[in-house]
Amino acid sequence: MNSRPDKDVLDALKAVVGDAGFREEAADLEPHLTEWRGLFQGRTPLMLMPSSTAEVSAIMKICSTHGVAVVPQGGNTGLAGGAIPGIDGVDAQILLSTSRLNQVTDIDAENYTMTAGAGCLLAEIQSAAQDAGLFFPLSLAAEGSCQIGGNISTNAGGTNVLRFGNTRELVLGLEVVLPDGSIYDDLRGLRKDNTGYDLKQLFIGAEGTLGIITAATLKLFPAARATATAWLAVESPAAAVSLYREARRRVGDELVAFELMPRIAIDMVLEHIPGTREPLDAAQPWYVLLELASARNQAVTDEQLTDLLGNCLDRGLVQDGVVASSEAQRGDLWRLRHSISEAQKNAGASIKHDISVPVSGMPEFLERANELVEARVPGIRPVPFGHLGDGNLHYNVSQPDDMKAEAFLALWEPLNELVHTLAVELGGSFSAEHGIGSLKVAELERLGDPVKLRLMRSVKQALDPGGIMNPGKVLRS
Amino acid sequence: MNSRPDKDVLDALKAVVGDAGFREEAADLEPHLTEWRGLFQGRTPLMLMPSSTAEVSAIMKICSTHGVAVVPQGGNTGLAGGAIPGIDGVDAQILLSTSRLNQVTDIDAENYTMTAGAGCLLAEIQSAAQDAGLFFPLSLAAEGSCQIGGNISTNAGGTNVLRFGNTRELVLGLEVVLPDGSIYDDLRGLRKDNTGYDLKQLFIGAEGTLGIITAATLKLFPAARATATAWLAVESPAAAVSLYREARRRVGDELVAFELMPRIAIDMVLEHIPGTREPLDAAQPWYVLLELASARNQAVTDEQLTDLLGNCLDRGLVQDGVVASSEAQRGDLWRLRHSISEAQKNAGASIKHDISVPVSGMPEFLERANELVEARVPGIRPVPFGHLGDGNLHYNVSQPDDMKAEAFLALWEPLNELVHTLAVELGGSFSAEHGIGSLKVAELERLGDPVKLRLMRSVKQALDPGGIMNPGKVLRS
Repeated sequence: MNSRPDKDVLDALKAVVGDAGFREEAADLEPHLTEWRGLFQGRTPLMLMPSSTAEVSAIMKICSTHGVAVVPQGGNTGLAGGAIPGIDGVDAQILLSTSRLNQVTDIDAENYTMTAGAGCLLAEIQSAAQDAGLFFPLSLAAEGSCQIGGNISTNAGGTNVLRFGNTRELVLGLEVVLPDGSIYDDLRGLRKDNTGYDLKQLFIGAEGTLGIITAATLKLFPAARATATAWLAVESPAAAVSLYREARRRVGDELVAFELMPRIAIDMVLEHIPGTREPLDAAQPWYVLLELASARNQAVTDEQLTDLLGNCLDRGLVQDGVVASSEAQRGDLWRLRHSISEAQKNAGASIKHDISVPVSGMPEFLERANELVEARVPGIRPVPFGHLGDGNLHYNVSQPDDMKAEAFLALWEPLNELVHTLAVELGGSFSAEHGIGSLKVAELERLGDPVKLRLMRSVKQALDPGGIMNPGKVLRS
Repeated sequence: MNSRPDKDVLDALKAVVGDAGFREEAADLEPHLTEWRGLFQGRTPLMLMPSSTAEVSAIMKICSTHGVAVVPQGGNTGLAGGAIPGIDGVDAQILLSTSRLNQVTDIDAENYTMTAGAGCLLAEIQSAAQDAGLFFPLSLAAEGSCQIGGNISTNAGGTNVLRFGNTRELVLGLEVVLPDGSIYDDLRGLRKDNTGYDLKQLFIGAEGTLGIITAATLKLFPAARATATAWLAVESPAAAVSLYREARRRVGDELVAFELMPRIAIDMVLEHIPGTREPLDAAQPWYVLLELASARNQAVTDEQLTDLLGNCLDRGLVQDGVVASSEAQRGDLWRLRHSISEAQKNAGASIKHDISVPVSGMPEFLERANELVEARVPGIRPVPFGHLGDGNLHYNVSQPDDMKAEAFLALWEPLNELVHTLAVELGGSFSAEHGIGSLKVAELERLGDPVKLRLMRSVKQALDPGGIMNPGKVLRS
């Protein structure tokens, strides 16, 4: 099956979707064949853009009959090359874009649910919820261009996981077209349903290797009425973990963000990002950006934050801090956090890791990871930052000042290996948010439990016996 | 494989667990062979009580080699006959009790997680969390005798689903012994991990048909500091749904219980349960028991509830109400709710249904279900009550006053069929909390999507090719 499909088959596929539903010119295909960081470049003979579940079903019937591989793609914002067809350079795999499956078909305010097509942009879903006076919590940097089907297929994380969970926890129902074209319809807004295996869980996070998600019923939440944000200095990651424990204990569910940043990250931001400024009087080794959101009024929420900080300052858990007194100041604090990746680009080459460990294990992880990478590359500059409340940090390392970028980047794999092995040794994950895609298939084989890999292959074989769904992603084909 | 295993095989199994680890006398086996409502009576040649995961693994290796079927059992508190071996009257199936896998091995307060053996009682898990100043939210009537492994295998619901989700949402990691004896070890306390298919989801809610859950890592939460409870009169189920929507909007995550009850249920309780009393001055058609829990202090939480009720009374959503002013009064209100099942037993024979629909669809469900059962059995008395906030009601119907109990109970299946079919037609479920077990296998075949059933069989075949795990439960073997 690793060759260009016959013209007859391609014509039959085009006939399913009509003229508006396919692209085959190189210029049209190009944006869909390049992973946005440039790590992968693909090929395809044809991009299909079905406008209904029935069309997706008809496409899969043809493809399964003829053994043609299909790669689903949403907004193409993934970071692991999971949505790029033909990365082996062969134009054998059809690209199936979900972009025209983009209708919000139902908002049920009394049930706190929304049903939407896979091609809806995440930002559109957020707005539709907001227009109904409700809230959809999934939020991430690519929200203006990523699609909800892709978010579900990759079990996206983002900035609201601490309170609301990953995408998996936001999905109540799914519609999926299976490799043989049959439609698994579980598009229901039920909080409780124990009638057999919960099969939708298999498709969530499967990165398109088991079927094509065409629509979903999502959980909505009450909109928050008040937000309170603080920028706090702490002595160490261990102090940050103690602060996290205490903050959750004292404010419960109102704690919605708990981000950790080292001083070096703030130095990079202040040096390279115009308009940013130091929030506290004196430099401190570590910072926490903490946010509360509440259904109560602003005054009560502010008081809650003030009480928490007063207590933590008294007990020495926090060295210094500032509470945002306006929406503009809140924006400034978040901008420091969100500018780290961009600032780091100006500080030479960097190598990124998306690890998680139990929150309690983060201080040990940081200490040992720093030792390991420093021993391998003296002068290396670790810039670990991110969602400490989720046990998930972006453990990014910048090159030594006196090293050539190429020489440093040549160490990508050995540095990955050191960091990933340590995370797994500490009961953690080498891909907390971004998935496996093409990028980490070998790493999953190296670090994954053999029993897990065997089970995964059994499931893949059971659901996609012809091996036509996004072959080579997640599992080697 | 449907005959008593050979003596050699039974001896080999006994040797794995030693003298303390098995039972074979009828008197010892009896409590494990009867489903507690008496709907199923089973048989087994041997009950094994392994004390370690390694022993479970050794047992499964022997059973898979010899094609011996194994039925896992926790506290034997299920309501669908899922944990009873040999309900066909043949002593072919080994009973594997998880009761000695009962150690809490780790509480990580900074990570808000606990790791515990499958045999821990739910009440022990709750206490262990409480002793650490934390909270495990799963709570249900059988919590003093059910085991966490069984709760996970059945994806138990209970009274805290509105805020905390079903058991599935409380599980971060699992250890599972597979049918061939290999051990799937995913016992990790990670909030984010996107490294391949999330296989633990398959075992949660599979009722022991895919493997044996031996341990789990569970999410813990901050303990609530304050609780506020109200008993409210509403005009109709539609008014209750509007009240639910408004209550969630105004108090957000602090809304932890929202139970609906009809007047007839309260009449039955007041008549048959000593020491109960009418909470409001005048009888009303419907009641809501609403509870808030908060990390804030009691005064702030009481004020939140008072504000909510004042607003809802002003707007006519609520007709009358009382707020519990003491823990004793709170207990009295909950006792009215929890006594309904018992009271109903005194009002003649009843037939129970465990249905869910979207919250918004509940008024239509109740109206149509009442019409259907009344048309079938004139004078029938519907007593629908339960977790309206989860879209889950116990739609129980009591016999007409002038009918013989036997005549009424003979209508069990046709009444089930009417009610279940309606629930599914309205996008709901015919088994919201209790699962399929043995009781609802035929109903799943009748009402389940054929694509779903086919997929379930594929998954079962892939994970348990020999068909030795709890055969005949969930899916016909």
